[in-house]
Amino acid sequence: MRVVAALGGNALLRRGQPMTAENQRANIRVAARALLPIALEHDLVLTHGNGPQVGLLALQNAAYRPDEGYPLDVLDAETEGMIGYLLEQELGNLLPSGRPMATLLTRIAVDPADPAFERPTKPIGPMYEHDEAQRKAAERGWTVAPDGAQWRRVVPSPQPRQILEIGVIELLVREKVLVVCAGGGGIPVVAIPDGGYVGIEAVIDKDYAGALLATLLHADAFLMLTDVDAAYEGWGGPDARPIRTASPDDLESLEFAAGSMGPKVEAACRFVRANSGYAAIGSLADAPKMLRREAGTIVAAGAQGVRDPEPAEELSAARP
Amino acid sequence: MRVVAALGGNALLRRGQPMTAENQRANIRVAARALLPIALEHDLVLTHGNGPQVGLLALQNAAYRPDEGYPLDVLDAETEGMIGYLLEQELGNLLPSGRPMATLLTRIAVDPADPAFERPTKPIGPMYEHDEAQRKAAERGWTVAPDGAQWRRVVPSPQPRQILEIGVIELLVREKVLVVCAGGGGIPVVAIPDGGYVGIEAVIDKDYAGALLATLLHADAFLMLTDVDAAYEGWGGPDARPIRTASPDDLESLEFAAGSMGPKVEAACRFVRANSGYAAIGSLADAPKMLRREAGTIVAAGAQGVRDPEPAEELSAARP
Repeated sequence: MRVVAALGGNALLRRGQPMTAENQRANIRVAARALLPIALEHDLVLTHGNGPQVGLLALQNAAYRPDEGYPLDVLDAETEGMIGYLLEQELGNLLPSGRPMATLLTRIAVDPADPAFERPTKPIGPMYEHDEAQRKAAERGWTVAPDGAQWRRVVPSPQPRQILEIGVIELLVREKVLVVCAGGGGIPVVAIPDGGYVGIEAVIDKDYAGALLATLLHADAFLMLTDVDAAYEGWGGPDARPIRTASPDDLESLEFAAGSMGPKVEAACRFVRANSGYAAIGSLADAPKMLRREAGTIVAAGAQGVRDPEPAEELSAARP
Repeated sequence: MRVVAALGGNALLRRGQPMTAENQRANIRVAARALLPIALEHDLVLTHGNGPQVGLLALQNAAYRPDEGYPLDVLDAETEGMIGYLLEQELGNLLPSGRPMATLLTRIAVDPADPAFERPTKPIGPMYEHDEAQRKAAERGWTVAPDGAQWRRVVPSPQPRQILEIGVIELLVREKVLVVCAGGGGIPVVAIPDGGYVGIEAVIDKDYAGALLATLLHADAFLMLTDVDAAYEGWGGPDARPIRTASPDDLESLEFAAGSMGPKVEAACRFVRANSGYAAIGSLADAPKMLRREAGTIVAAGAQGVRDPEPAEELSAARP
């Protein structure tokens, strides 16, 4: 099977953990072990988030020379290098020697008319007091928004339209190379009138980018690996129940958290509607089971009913 | 022809220029224009330095959280992302649409018994006063060395032994993909006893890495592109003369500057001794002429005599 797996930011760095290289390397080692059974049996394409990492680079830039900070497309490219290297190394260390891997810088084109550019929503970089935030907004053309008692820069999150390196990715997958690509949702670029592309200050949702990647590769399965075991109906409430299997139409009647599960559910629906494959949302540790449709939330065309017959407790107890 | 071209750090950032993203993008655009004629006619593999960029990352790391600085292998990976992206974008913007490009994260294995580990020589990161330098050396196991009136960390520069992604690079070149790889001399790793690799705090010379890359790819030509028009005999003296053509044996009788021209000459000799191709050292702007053996210093087996029949002035005047 051809499998696209998207690693959530929490697979790289657990909430509250200091963002040292050692912590990330250790977490990525755990992720590599979870992915190994899939990598050994299938054609695996791996993508990943970069939220905490690109945030760290923005903070490092601001701490060194606040007025010479690098634009987001360049910071995204740096994180694709850093995270891609750690993933390739740790997964490569578990694979039989001679199994080729490639980490590919990946640009993803967005539409400059995307309505997201009218409403920047993604916070990035340091916190500022009100006056400094306004000054930076005026000086640099930033949009700033309140974040608790302070202010922060916010950037647009447009939809991914085209993966510029998709031909090379397809070529490598056909040649049985395990590919790491489209990290952090890809490096955002827009087409320029005289041909070619230029980077743009934006952040592409990594699950939407993963759905596009899985669609263009005609993947059999698209796995979104995070730190919860499934998408839940009534999440956070007393009757929360994991969704075991659902069709895109089933899921459309439900509400999910805008910043976290919502985009994953939407990404799953996009992939399933465009392909004959299925999508799965669940825990990194369950990845091989999710691929066998035995864990996580499985999104597939024509699935019937959104509830799991088992209560949530049993599902959890059944996990290794 | 199959051509490996190594871009010097000065092609990315001219001496004394502020290291902003805009300056680098503008310089890389110039480099892309110089390389375009080669990219259009030949199978081009591009590699590049990262000295100023990895230094900037070390400074940014130190400015933000001095005790959570990332190790050099990770910083190298970040620079491969950043510089590779800019190169791919600017060269891609000049190429006919549909011409595939790929920027590949590249790890290069070094020998842990390399004598360079006994004598770290490459300065990296911030300057420190004597006492702080000694404290950091004791705390982190760094080697520090005087740098003018202050002190600086120095790291080893071992020889590149193996390019871990060479199989994928060869595959892509055969498929007519323009590859950017082995940036900054590659991400330095060493083999570990139970199989696999771990990153190491070192810097691999990018010209030596380029020579190994060109050798393993059986390149027809290996171009080292810098900001001088040739290797010079008697550089800096009153009788300095550019070397037009030389064999490795010819060059061994001469002295070159240890930190700059020396490694380029040595890299050229290594490539020519291991291959049937030729190497060239010269100005970025002369790249297409160098490939036709009409500019720069051409190093080839059996070349006779190290002097150029033309005086240096005429050679300069003849350049476009």
